[in-house]
Amino acid sequence: MPDEQLTVAELSESGLLARIFPRLDHRPGILLGPGDDAAIVSAPDGRTVISIDTQVQDQDFRLEWTNGYRTTGYDVGWKAAAQNLSDINAMGATATSMVVSLTLPPETPVSWVEDLADGLTAGIRELGAVDCSVAGGDLGRGREISVTVAVLGTLSGGRAVLRSGARPGDVLALAGTVGRAAAGLALLESEADVHSLKPEQRVLLDVQCRPQPPLSAGPLARAAGATAMLDISDGLIRDGARLAHASRAVLDLDPRELKHLAESLAPASDLLGMDPLAWVLGGGEDHSLLATFPPGIQLPAGFTAIGSVQALGTNESPGVKIAGQAAGTGGWDHFAD
Amino acid sequence: MPDEQLTVAELSESGLLARIFPRLDHRPGILLGPGDDAAIVSAPDGRTVISIDTQVQDQDFRLEWTNGYRTTGYDVGWKAAAQNLSDINAMGATATSMVVSLTLPPETPVSWVEDLADGLTAGIRELGAVDCSVAGGDLGRGREISVTVAVLGTLSGGRAVLRSGARPGDVLALAGTVGRAAAGLALLESEADVHSLKPEQRVLLDVQCRPQPPLSAGPLARAAGATAMLDISDGLIRDGARLAHASRAVLDLDPRELKHLAESLAPASDLLGMDPLAWVLGGGEDHSLLATFPPGIQLPAGFTAIGSVQALGTNESPGVKIAGQAAGTGGWDHFAD
Repeated sequence: MPDEQLTVAELSESGLLARIFPRLDHRPGILLGPGDDAAIVSAPDGRTVISIDTQVQDQDFRLEWTNGYRTTGYDVGWKAAAQNLSDINAMGATATSMVVSLTLPPETPVSWVEDLADGLTAGIRELGAVDCSVAGGDLGRGREISVTVAVLGTLSGGRAVLRSGARPGDVLALAGTVGRAAAGLALLESEADVHSLKPEQRVLLDVQCRPQPPLSAGPLARAAGATAMLDISDGLIRDGARLAHASRAVLDLDPRELKHLAESLAPASDLLGMDPLAWVLGGGEDHSLLATFPPGIQLPAGFTAIGSVQALGTNESPGVKIAGQAAGTGGWDHFAD
Repeated sequence: MPDEQLTVAELSESGLLARIFPRLDHRPGILLGPGDDAAIVSAPDGRTVISIDTQVQDQDFRLEWTNGYRTTGYDVGWKAAAQNLSDINAMGATATSMVVSLTLPPETPVSWVEDLADGLTAGIRELGAVDCSVAGGDLGRGREISVTVAVLGTLSGGRAVLRSGARPGDVLALAGTVGRAAAGLALLESEADVHSLKPEQRVLLDVQCRPQPPLSAGPLARAAGATAMLDISDGLIRDGARLAHASRAVLDLDPRELKHLAESLAPASDLLGMDPLAWVLGGGEDHSLLATFPPGIQLPAGFTAIGSVQALGTNESPGVKIAGQAAGTGGWDHFAD
């Protein structure tokens, strides 16, 4: 039968692994790669930074969207790489390796899985995680596609940048974009046929499907003295509130900066008649970094000031404000949505 | 509403996490635990051993079985701990930490998830992984329950025991049991009402639901000079063949030892009229260790000799024999089953 029609049910586990392995890179930090009961990865400073994240079909992506776009295995592999690498970035660390667990319905085309491996490899490479490769994994069967990545990283002997270190007077800064993935999601969920999109609209859709976290920014922020940092995966307000709570402070956003960010989303908001500010405040999945820096220092390359850290007032709760006014809740919660 | 009826859909992500965290242990090897973008774990000898494994509802467990047994969250948590700890054990390493990704349908009772956390903690503790605790995790929604654990371990400066080191003349030895989990699975899938089982039958069912991998045996085997080792998760024949292929050798099993192992399964095989030897040869999930040792050395505590390693004959392929005769294929393949 033509290779495009081959499904994973028609291959053995080892047969499927033999299709995947040649599509992965192998970096020197992997001391023992796939093929044994476990892998062995270098942890040069005696510590391992570790995070885990799962993408599930029909929750984190749809195989076919309202606007006709079909999610490719490449998209899913790229996004799995991007969102996990972003968590390591947000600690100020660099990624050393990943282990990947794939759950696949039996009817999944083998070519889709090969495409996923290619997207994973391309994401790691093109986002600049040059020391990272896949050390091992697991394959299993399920009713829906599920891709879990655990990513390992190193702080190279340095400190981690936690969520809890922001101090009143610090500058609040952003590296990367916000709202673009949410605008892309709105396009995917719209009736605006994917084939009729203009390039400036299509690029927003691409951010949703293949996010571009700024992977050099995390270690640069750490070196520059960032006091706190996190990955914006659930929206500026929601993730900002997490940083604010951990640091027992208030984050005050500059409305002019929010306006600039919103204006850049006009190609989607004009087409769909939607409010771009809602995407800026509530949209996750760009996987940008929100960080705080002591006042007066030069922000590292890629960061833009978007507000400041303020002390908690009497009886005030930690949270996010816009020009001193309480910002509404927003962003993504997996359960209470 | 009564707490037993609360579902995960009625709690926020942070609300659910607040139910889970107090049920987890925290060991000193976790340098930074749950709550930031990533965790930080000690890797004292500059290397991290890492493995990942997923359990999916209706593939790896059923919420309710033919014989009336209901899988508890505790069972799933315990099994997730056991099967992952076993992979670290099989390298001769000891576990230092886990990260856990849970995918939950909205209707999952919160009490089931709390029970899962309790089972995970109990499995780690009671199986003897005294240095290990949960460093972090991820929560998401899906149509079926899926539990992925990535487990990290340390070799404490020593070598890893790979699958590839067996030499002709080595003694082939087993630590732990084989076939008991398969016998338990057969009971679960039978019409023999769980409430009517005798204690010696029930204990087999318990091995399927809460396996007991021999966690001290892996490091002991390494210290004793084991030349090769792996975890029997897919059956003695199938996993034995993996070791044989990696070592370019033949494993020859002693039929008297297989007979002893089969006889211990009589409480299930007599009841069900099934062949216990098929469970011994093809059953996985006891998570025992198969290891090879140089001839003449005293086997470490917990290991029993069950055969020997032989050189490949001319034009012979690596594989498993029983008393010199080719053994049929057997065991579990996730796709070609």
